[in-house]
Amino acid sequence: MRSLEEKIIAEGKILPGDILKVGSFLNQQMDVTFIMEMGREIARLYRDCGVTKILTVESSGIAVAFAAAAAMGVPMVFAKKHASANMSGGAYSAPAESYTHGKTYHIVVSEEYLLPTDAVLLVDDFLAVGNALRGLLALCRQADARVVGAAVAIEKWYQQGGDALRSEGLRIESLAKIKSLSTKDGISFC
Amino acid sequence: MRSLEEKIIAEGKILPGDILKVGSFLNQQMDVTFIMEMGREIARLYRDCGVTKILTVESSGIAVAFAAAAAMGVPMVFAKKHASANMSGGAYSAPAESYTHGKTYHIVVSEEYLLPTDAVLLVDDFLAVGNALRGLLALCRQADARVVGAAVAIEKWYQQGGDALRSEGLRIESLAKIKSLSTKDGISFC
Repeated sequence: MRSLEEKIIAEGKILPGDILKVGSFLNQQMDVTFIMEMGREIARLYRDCGVTKILTVESSGIAVAFAAAAAMGVPMVFAKKHASANMSGGAYSAPAESYTHGKTYHIVVSEEYLLPTDAVLLVDDFLAVGNALRGLLALCRQADARVVGAAVAIEKWYQQGGDALRSEGLRIESLAKIKSLSTKDGISFC
Repeated sequence: MRSLEEKIIAEGKILPGDILKVGSFLNQQMDVTFIMEMGREIARLYRDCGVTKILTVESSGIAVAFAAAAAMGVPMVFAKKHASANMSGGAYSAPAESYTHGKTYHIVVSEEYLLPTDAVLLVDDFLAVGNALRGLLALCRQADARVVGAAVAIEKWYQQGGDALRSEGLRIESLAKIKSLSTKDGISFC
């Protein structure tokens, strides 16, 4: 998605540790009109795939997942990083290490919102080493739900998580795929 | 908003401790089409108020805030419950006790996303004792941003946080206002 690449170049900042900050439009401040456009692109990529539900993990994945769900006309479910008092009944749980936060969460989703009859599209803002997607895949496996594929806004391709998952048979669509990123040389796309 | 009251009656569950669970359409699983409708209603209530930005707090407020921002055509910002590695520069911070989780977070927003020129609409999914709104108000005060008002999906009116804030001069619009709630007698609206 050329417009996303242009936005990353124009507004993205590279922080120490090669962390890409896109807080001005995707992570903390959200350019809602633009994210709705990203949602329509995800819907286009997965049209005719019979998606019944979109699954993401809180917090920064929620907006992109919401926009994709709005464009596809299906419900969206987000896994929580902690069990909560407003959950009841059984839940699926899987570990997911956060690259940005440097710790492992046990992501949780209520059993009642992920069904064996579901055809699930996984959505997230970033794909780096692939831990979040692996966690979401584990939740779907526990629920016996079928995973149609994954869509992410920004894939850090050089961290290889995406290609590892693709080689295991998962379809992944990235709206922008970063080939390399460094404070010295900036950002290049695949 | 009559349709929201009907949905709460049809799908809401009352958990021990008088916690209202609306996880089937608002909190964990999201009825995106319906939430977009709620966003349009919030936009209608605050039309002609010159809103430049919508502010919420992660995670469950994000969807309603996103929908309102989409309907109003303004950016949305969410305060984080913890500082994060992908934040840089100065940040505003304020305490906000979570009624549901029973602990106090220090909510944080980067200085660059909340400006003295902003006219801010606060949005959240629930309003009970008002701690989240008070935290968001404190962030806006620190940024010297003007607060136009607040919009929440569900106000638990009997917990009095909304009326306390109204008596301090804050305009608050609730799409559904719960008068009483108990496992014994169910839910009644104002």
